Formats: sequence, structure tokens, C-alpha cells
Amino acid sequence: MKPLGIAVVGLGRIGKVHAEIIAMRLSNARLVAVADVIESLARSTGEQFKVKWYTDYDKLLRDEEVDAVFITTPTYLHKEMIVRAAEAGKHVFTEKPITVTREEAVEAVKAARKAGVKLMVGYMRRFDDAYSEAKRRIEQGAIGKPLVFVNVARDPGPPPGWAQDPKLSGGIFLDMLSHDFDMARFLISSEVKSVYVLGGAMLYEEIRQKGDLDVVTVNFEFESGAVGMLHGSRKSVFGYDLRTEVMGTEGTVYVGSHHDPNLALGTREGLTFKGVQWFWGRFYEAYVKEDQAFVDAVLGDKEPPITGVDGLRVVEIAEACWRSWREKRPVTVERTAV
Amino acid sequence: MKPLGIAVVGLGRIGKVHAEIIAMRLSNARLVAVADVIESLARSTGEQFKVKWYTDYDKLLRDEEVDAVFITTPTYLHKEMIVRAAEAGKHVFTEKPITVTREEAVEAVKAARKAGVKLMVGYMRRFDDAYSEAKRRIEQGAIGKPLVFVNVARDPGPPPGWAQDPKLSGGIFLDMLSHDFDMARFLISSEVKSVYVLGGAMLYEEIRQKGDLDVVTVNFEFESGAVGMLHGSRKSVFGYDLRTEVMGTEGTVYVGSHHDPNLALGTREGLTFKGVQWFWGRFYEAYVKEDQAFVDAVLGDKEPPITGVDGLRVVEIAEACWRSWREKRPVTVERTAV
Amino acid sequence: MKPLGIAVVGLGRIGKVHAEIIAMRLSNARLVAVADVIESLARSTGEQFKVKWYTDYDKLLRDEEVDAVFITTPTYLHKEMIVRAAEAGKHVFTEKPITVTREEAVEAVKAARKAGVKLMVGYMRRFDDAYSEAKRRIEQGAIGKPLVFVNVARDPGPPPGWAQDPKLSGGIFLDMLSHDFDMARFLISSEVKSVYVLGGAMLYEEIRQKGDLDVVTVNFEFESGAVGMLHGSRKSVFGYDLRTEVMGTEGTVYVGSHHDPNLALGTREGLTFKGVQWFWGRFYEAYVKEDQAFVDAVLGDKEPPITGVDGLRVVEIAEACWRSWREKRPVTVERTAV
Amino acid sequence: MKPLGIAVVGLGRIGKVHAEIIAMRLSNARLVAVADVIESLARSTGEQFKVKWYTDYDKLLRDEEVDAVFITTPTYLHKEMIVRAAEAGKHVFTEKPITVTREEAVEAVKAARKAGVKLMVGYMRRFDDAYSEAKRRIEQGAIGKPLVFVNVARDPGPPPGWAQDPKLSGGIFLDMLSHDFDMARFLISSEVKSVYVLGGAMLYEEIRQKGDLDVVTVNFEFESGAVGMLHGSRKSVFGYDLRTEVMGTEGTVYVGSHHDPNLALGTREGLTFKGVQWFWGRFYEAYVKEDQAFVDAVLGDKEPPITGVDGLRVVEIAEACWRSWREKRPVTVERTAV
Repeated sequence: MKPLGIAVVGLGRIGKVHAEIIAMRLSNARLVAVADVIESLARSTGEQFKVKWYTDYDKLLRDEEVDAVFITTPTYLHKEMIVRAAEAGKHVFTEKPITVTREEAVEAVKAARKAGVKLMVGYMRRFDDAYSEAKRRIEQGAIGKPLVFVNVARDPGPPPGWAQDPKLSGGIFLDMLSHDFDMARFLISSEVKSVYVLGGAMLYEEIRQKGDLDVVTVNFEFESGAVGMLHGSRKSVFGYDLRTEVMGTEGTVYVGSHHDPNLALGTREGLTFKGVQWFWGRFYEAYVKEDQAFVDAVLGDKEPPITGVDGLRVVEIAEACWRSWREKRPVTVERTAV
Repeated sequence: MKPLGIAVVGLGRIGKVHAEIIAMRLSNARLVAVADVIESLARSTGEQFKVKWYTDYDKLLRDEEVDAVFITTPTYLHKEMIVRAAEAGKHVFTEKPITVTREEAVEAVKAARKAGVKLMVGYMRRFDDAYSEAKRRIEQGAIGKPLVFVNVARDPGPPPGWAQDPKLSGGIFLDMLSHDFDMARFLISSEVKSVYVLGGAMLYEEIRQKGDLDVVTVNFEFESGAVGMLHGSRKSVFGYDLRTEVMGTEGTVYVGSHHDPNLALGTREGLTFKGVQWFWGRFYEAYVKEDQAFVDAVLGDKEPPITGVDGLRVVEIAEACWRSWREKRPVTVERTAV
Repeated sequence: MKPLGIAVVGLGRIGKVHAEIIAMRLSNARLVAVADVIESLARSTGEQFKVKWYTDYDKLLRDEEVDAVFITTPTYLHKEMIVRAAEAGKHVFTEKPITVTREEAVEAVKAARKAGVKLMVGYMRRFDDAYSEAKRRIEQGAIGKPLVFVNVARDPGPPPGWAQDPKLSGGIFLDMLSHDFDMARFLISSEVKSVYVLGGAMLYEEIRQKGDLDVVTVNFEFESGAVGMLHGSRKSVFGYDLRTEVMGTEGTVYVGSHHDPNLALGTREGLTFKGVQWFWGRFYEAYVKEDQAFVDAVLGDKEPPITGVDGLRVVEIAEACWRSWREKRPVTVERTAV
Repeated sequence: MKPLGIAVVGLGRIGKVHAEIIAMRLSNARLVAVADVIESLARSTGEQFKVKWYTDYDKLLRDEEVDAVFITTPTYLHKEMIVRAAEAGKHVFTEKPITVTREEAVEAVKAARKAGVKLMVGYMRRFDDAYSEAKRRIEQGAIGKPLVFVNVARDPGPPPGWAQDPKLSGGIFLDMLSHDFDMARFLISSEVKSVYVLGGAMLYEEIRQKGDLDVVTVNFEFESGAVGMLHGSRKSVFGYDLRTEVMGTEGTVYVGSHHDPNLALGTREGLTFKGVQWFWGRFYEAYVKEDQAFVDAVLGDKEPPITGVDGLRVVEIAEACWRSWREKRPVTVERTAV
């Protein structure tokens, strides 16, 4: 089988992670090109990986060695880049979230469908051993019928500058918590029906000024009758604090942690554990499996495990959260038929 | 100093715990009588403790050796018993919750005030080492300004028969979760302003039939601007699952646990810890400190650390939760001036 | 059935715990007397429990209401008190260790045997839920054949004055670590065959002066072929650090912990848990079960679950540890046939 | 600065990890060649990394682009390959352990010294965040004076075939536990003075037949007066069980864990955590830092952080363990002056 030729577009931190994984860790795939609008970055990365490099996206899309693109640029560029890749007949993997708005997401989904190319969205937690094992156990009936989804997500600090502007990133509900809403849909196997938001910009003046929030709680219902509650914060002084649990009629599954068990110091103060300091460390192997799943779906001509519609659904939830926030009441999540 | 003479009224499980603590563990207090409507129970308990025993509450209230009563009867009897004790000039410690309704709570508070007797409500978690240390650390500024209260409370099973009837017990929000709302007020040092409830009777048919709920989530605001989310369940198959956390601008404090670290079995399945099987084991020392605090308040003529008004405030929150549940919308907690 | 009449002799901390348990928590037993050489202590305790009190042990032994004595005095008094109680026809529960020396232990065992009274030694960990469940799981085959015993035992601080003198207490190997050797025998179901000791008086000048040790490691063999290693320290600045594990061919069981999961503070330093601050808190229910087991053995005319010979065996191990320490080589544990 | 040209020799699992790290993650270094005696493996790896490939070690040593070699072959080949690399003027990084015997280690150290090339041994735990932070804290005085080293190391299963032969691998004390002895020296900052071994071949018939052990305990002294105890097992059914602790006069530091906190399933059995399933996952970043440290030492003409003499010292300890095992007594570790 001819390996899938892949180009990575957008060479920030996560772009380089995907490039490294594609070059080193995948079966049936090879990195053929990298691209960035910053020429020096494109060139040095190309040289590091010994592959072609581009600054012009259209030129890259005309490269016949490129079968698929990985879009790892800021969110507000996703829609346009997905559509153009699809029109060029390239399969598309896009980092999360799929787009900033629902309308854009629909456009992206339709473009891929029309072109007959695969479109996958990168919610890598689904491929993490702990989350995927949790899913498997739930499906095997280990906790009976799922009734409650509880989630705490605290990032160590605020996102990079552009992502603090909700017009460019979708704000906290999309940029950060869409991971958690994706996980809610994944673990409960049901759509989110309504949301009710409380919170505010309580931590960072710059986030307040841009109109985003940094501390929120969301109470929500699933179509299945299950209920959920979720808390997100853009600050956790000791490291990541990311925990998800699903209670069912016969048990509860817990994923995530708030401390690294590997170092503790016992002094007169008590026993102090390190926080969890991963950026992508914890999830590196999840990215590998995610990228392989994309390659396998394309080569096997199967639906990718996280579709454009999955990406659309979390955009819709995030938009409902913003509406609940503005209107100070529970709101129904509107789902677009596509 | 003459020790405070105490009678315990209502000799179910928790009544006996208080009797044992008063007889054995307190300073400046002595158990002088016990009472129950079941004569055989009253007599055998009296004999065990070598104290007087009563089946008639009024007779007990006329006993001059009795300076204070501990009311450990079912909730729906509290109001009447508090009022009569106050009228008889006896100080009152009542188990939680203070009463079933807001009106009753107001009546109880006013009766104690009019009679000039102390009235304390037994939310023992406030005296547990972990919760009280959490409070102390928050007040010392260890987590900065408190912003978020997160709480999960899962009991191993449903309450005893009478408490499954919300007319007698106040239902899940009062009978069970008033502990958690008391803790919210205690740790955040602010009143709860509004609540929004989701949930249902998802676990037990008998609870559904009596009109109570067994799985709920509550999203709520504090007057301080902090937000909270809380989940309660009447089932946790492996034991108690009770965890509270408060995130502030500078850190997070975590109280509670979902497993006992003292036994783990490592087999091919992984590492299996025991659940937490306390009924009052975990909190026995908290009850001792709570009871001593009552004695000290009475003898020192000070306000008890958990007042009748504290008891009223959580009844008001529970009533708001029921209203939110019925009306399917966020509601404001109405507070009675007393 | 006539309840067993019990007297508690020695009213320090642990004596009062047993008195409280006998008075309040046991079936088929009643506290009939307490005794201490300090008259004021004997009297006040007798008044608290509303029972007879003695300062003269012989007088107590002539009390016909006393069927059994609990000996909770310092170790160096045990032998004489056990022998006299046996001669008076009283059943005996003695706190651990049974005696200071092997010769004394043999004498105590023989005296009880000759008098036909029961003799039990109080290694309460055997009745703790975690340790006893560990034993049960091992016997059920959950870890296959036991191969390795690993134990860390660190007390928060040095013992009271008298127990720092090895001539009175048997020193660290008997006063403190006999709990752990008892657990080794209990969990592995095999006798200890040889021991090799390293360590010293590294922490406390007063311990060094009295000839005791405060930091030790012991490498040892069981008759079954299993091996063990054990570390004891008289200091742990954040609280108790007590952990035992048994690895078998098919798994490992872990008992104990080094932190209390119930309170954690997350700050820039990391996540700090409280240490474990029990004195008898953790083991209170174990003492209740232990005392009940003694009562049941006496009333049912059965061998107590921890016999005088069990007590003797750990004295022999402790003596072998001292010999290994003095001779700087592995030594065989000599077992006396009784 | 001209980047250091590196060749990786021996393309098993760990060899490829180093190749990937050198190619992708290091500063001032580049992968210039790979080598293996299996031609197909050498070729395919060379093609994957787009570098030269060799099957002939001498030919590789004549390659002028190669400034340094990474030796990742089986242990019994190390000595010869280190000596030849040194004679060819190449700097050497060798995977642990340095060699099978003390004599070989001395020869390797002398060869590197004579040739004036750097020689580093790969005990990567020293570069792991948890272990290195533990070291830092100990040096900062966080636990006072170190008194006790306690270590449990259980691998999920036996090593690959060749490493089961102690003549080729040094057996359990060198092949597996030299990591732990290296850590003992590193954390206590003192040499091991004597060892006493118990144990046997209790788990695997094939290990027994080859004369190796699979379950051991070691009691040992440091020159500083500190003591240590260590247990190693070639089996842990639920995953890695690797824990190290150092107790000092003022506290204790704990490194490692026996469960992954990221997934727990609560059922009627209790709360079951996943074991730790890393092979190099947990330590991947440690390998990156280790390899960078080698590059920095060579380019900066400094002593590498883990020297050939460090490698020799753990060979000496492993040899003493074997001697103790054969002679059934504590033995002194003999150190060769080099």
C-alpha cells in the first residue's frame, strides 16, 4: 500500500508535534511537506524533517505528493483552509475546534462532503488510554446506565493572546471546554439538550476586556435523560487539574487527576505532591493514535472516528453556552441538520 | 463549674452516638437522662448508661437536672420539640436539619430567642478536622479569594423509610444535601443567592413514588459573586463518595475522598482500593467536638457556632431547589429576616 | 448468658480506651472495676464509669465479680500481673507486648495454662478492617503464594520516657516493631527464621543514651521460604507512616498509607495532603473487635485469636534482632517449645 | 557551533528511542548514522531517519562525520565496543549497565581516559523530573540529613531471553537493580559499603535454570552511616511497581507509584485503578534530557553527569550482591581505585 502523503500547515507547537508523529511514529504515512506563513519557520522545519516547505497554501495544495493536510493554525483560519483543501481534493485533519461558528462548521462539513474527502477533528482525549478505556468500560456495562457526567477542567494559565478573543477562538466554551463537551457526548453517547451557565471573568483583566470568561460552571441535560455539571477555569496554580467522572446505576468511572503521584515530599506541612505539568506529555501517545486513526480512515475509505459533524455539535453547545450566559437562563442547544 | 446536665431524646443510631459522647468524652457535661417513645429502648439505654430514662417528653422537660436537650428524633418532630424545650427553659441542640419547612424553622428560632435559651443545629462536618482545617486555610488566605465551590455527595444507599417522604424529611435537598449547602455557606462565607436544579428519581422506584429525587445537580450563585455546582446521589455502590473543593484566585482546597487508602489489592485487573465504609466512623471525632462546642457555648453564654438561623438558611436553599425543580428554571433563594 | 465481668488495670491512655469500649460497645461483657496505683486516677475513672475502683491489685483479684482482667500497664509489669491473675483464676487480656523477655513470656504462658485461664495478647491491627481483609484475601488466594513481606513503620515521635529504656520496654524491636513482626507472621502464616539488622540511634540523643535504636532496617527469612524487609523509625514529621505489603506469585496486597486523603491544599508548591494524625482513631474499631474477640473466646471456651504463644514468638524475634544488632550478622530466631 | 554528529549502534527498542530523540529533540546534535548487525534493520532504520547506515562497526568508527556513538547493544558487547570507539577517538554514551564485570568496566574507563574521550552511562532516572527534583530537594535540605533509603522495584515480567543469563547481563542485581543502586548513590550522595541479600528464583523456571534470581531483598549500609533496604521482583501482574523513598532527620521524599491515577472504576468490588503500563513512556522526557546532557558535556568539554566510574560502582555493588547471595552473609562492597 502506498503510504499517505501528509502536509502539516501551521508550525506552532501543536503543528510540530503532529509533524514529528507523522514523520516518526505512523504506519502507512509519510510527512511530505510543512507550511507556515513565516518563511523562516517553514524553512527551518522543512530542513529539520528533510521535507519540502511552503509559505503559500495554494501552492501546497497543488503538490501532487500531498494526499492530506493537517490544519494546525489558529481557529479563525480553519474554515477557509478546510474548504480550500477539500476543493483541491485533499483529505483534511483539523485541530479542534473545527471552526469558530456554527455556520462555518456547516460550510466545512458540506465542502468535504461535496468533494468526497475525509474530514476529521482532533479531540485527542478520545484516544488517550484512560478516556478510551473509560468509554469501553461504560459500553461493556461496567457502571450500568450512565446517569451523571461531572467534569472539572482547570488549565494552568490563560491561552495565548489570539485565543483570548472570543471572536477568533470561540472563547472559553469553544477554545477550552469543547474538549469536555466532546468527552460528554463521547462517554454518555447522547447529545446535550440544554445548558445553563454561571461564571464570569474573575481572574484576568485582559480576558474581561476581550469579552471572554475565565471561570464558569455549566449545568446541563442530555437527550438520554442523564444530567451533567461542568466547571472550567483558566487558572490552576499548581498545574493541570482535569477530572471527568460518569456515574451510572451500577458504578462510577473516574478519569484524570489533580496530582502527579510520582513525587511527594513529606515535611512538617504534610505530604506535598507535584502538580501535573504536561503540556502534551500526558497526551502524546493519544496524538499518535489519533493521527494513525485518521490515516487508517483515509486509506480504508471509512468514516473518521471524530467527524466534522462531531465538531459541529460541540460548536453548537458552545454557542448555547454563550446564549445562556447572555440571557441568564437555561437554553436549548440548537442542532443543525446536515 | 457545675457540669451541664443533658438529656438525649430519640434513641436511634445517632441518638446513641450523642449519648455515648456526652457520657464519656465531654468536659463540663454529664448525661442525666435519655428518652424515647419506645419504652423498652428508653429503659435499656438508661440502664446501659446508668441514667434516668423517660418515655414522656414533658416529664423529661420538668426534670430539674436537665439543663439542655439533644433532639435526635426524625426531622418532622423537631419544630414541636424545640419549641417545647425552649418554653421549658432548656437549651437545645437539634440534629440537622432544624425543621422540615422554613415556617417551622422561623418558629423554632423565635421560640429559642424568646425563652433566652441557646439553639444549635448539628452540621457536624464543620467540626471534622479536614473541613475545619479547610475553612481555616481559606480564612488565612491560602487560596486567595474563593471563586468556585464544587461538591459531589453520593451516599451508599437510600435513607430509612420515613426520610424517603419529602413531606417528613424535606427530601434529598434537605435531608441529605443540606450538609453540603451548609458547607458551601461555611467555606465561602457568603449566602447562596440562586439555584438551578436538574435531576430526577433515576435509581429507586420507592423514591419516585414518594415524590423525592435521588440524582440531582445544582448550579448556584453566591451573593459574593462566587459560583457553585453540586451533585448528589442516593447510591454509590462501593461506599461513600463525598468530595468538596473550593477554588480561589491563588489555589484550591480539596476535602473528602472516594476511596480508603488503607487497603489495595493489586491483581491482573489493576489496583483495587476499598471504598469508604464509615457511617459515623469518619465523623465520630467531629461529633465529639460539635457536642463540646454546644456545651461550651451554653456554659460560656455565647452564640453557638451553628445557630438556628444557620439552620433556617439551608432550609431556605432546599426550598428554592424544590421550586427550581418544579418550575424548571433558576430561582432566587428567599431569605426570611429573623 | 451472664455477661463477663471485666476489670481494667492501668489507667493510662490505652487503659481508658479499653474501659470505654468494654463499658459501651461490647456484647456479653460489662466493666465492673478499674484500677491504678495512682489513687486519684483510679477514683476519678471509677466515678466516670460508675464502677468500683482499686489501687491494690490483689484486692481486685479477690473481687468475685471480676471474671477477667485487662492488663494495660507498662510492659515490665506484665509478667508478674499475668501470673498473679492466672493464679487467682482470672482470664487475662494483656496489651502488647506480652512481656519484656522470652523467659517471662514462657512463664506467663505456663501460668495461664496451669490455671486453665485464657490468655490473649493485644495486637489490635489483626482486627483492623484493612489488615484483616488483607489476610482474608491472601487466604482466598488473591495474590497466589506469598513471597515477600515489605513493611515501613514510622511513628511521629519517640515513645514515653519509660519505653525509651530497652530494659523496661524491650526497645524498638519489641515496643514498636513487634506489631509489624506480628503482622508478618499473621499475613505470611509462617514463622520468622532469621533476621539481619542494620540501623542505629540516629535521631534522639536520649534514645542513644538509654541504649535503644531509633532507625532500623531488618532483612529476614520465613520458614516458608518467603523473604521480608522491614524499616522502623521513631520519627515521621508529618504523622504516622505505616505501610505493609505482601507480594505473591499472582499479585500484591497493600495495607496502610502515608497521607490522609481527606484534605489537600493546592498552591504554587503543589498539592499538600495532611498526614495521618490518629493515635487510636484509625484503630478504635479494631480495639472494639479485639476486645469482643477476647470476650467471645472466654465465654465460648475457645482459644483466643492471639495467644500467649503468639506473644512469645514476637518476643523471640525481637531478641534475635537485638542479637543480630550486637553481633553484626544474620542470626537464627530461636523458638522455645511450650 | 557545529552540531555533534552521532551514530546509534544497536537498533533494538531503546536504540530507536535514542535515534528518534537525537534526530528530533536535541539542540546542537544531529543523527548521522545508525548501525546494526542485522542488515535489513540497519537499512530500514537508516531510510526512516534519512541517514547513513552500517552493519560494520569498524567502518562506522572510521566515518569522520561521527563524533560520538550511542551504544545500545546487549550488555555483554559493551566493553569491546566502548574500547574500540575510544581508540577511534569517538565519544561514547553507553546504555546501562556499563559492562557485565568489574574488570571490563575498569578497562572501559581506562580506555576512554587514555583516548581523552567522554564516556557516559545511561541511568536515565537521574533525569526524570521526579527523581531529579527529589535529589534537588534533598540537597536543599528539605528532609534534613538522609538516613534511610527504601526501594521497591517490580517489573511487569521477565527480561528478554539473553538478559536472563547472568553471564551475559549480570543478572537481576545488574540488569535490573543497578538502576536502583545508582539511584541510592545519587540520592544519598554516599557509596554503598556492605550488602546482605535474601531471595531466590521463585517465579520463573527458566530464570532458575539459568542461575539468576527473580525475587530479592537487600539490606545495605552506606559509608555515610545511612542504611537502605531494597526489594526487586521480576513480576508485577498489574504493571510497573517502582517506588523509592529517602527518610531524613526532618522529612521523607517519595518517588514513584504503583498505580496510574488517571483511570479508576468504582464498582461493588471497590475502586480499581489502572496499573502503570509505561515502557519508556514515563521516562521518555528523561531520555531526552539525558541525551542532551551528554551532548552538552562533550561540546562543553565537561565531565558527563554519569561517568564511567559511576557505572563501575554499581557493577561493584551488583558483584557484592552475588557474593552475599552465594555466601549467605553480609559482605563488604570492594571498590576499585581508578
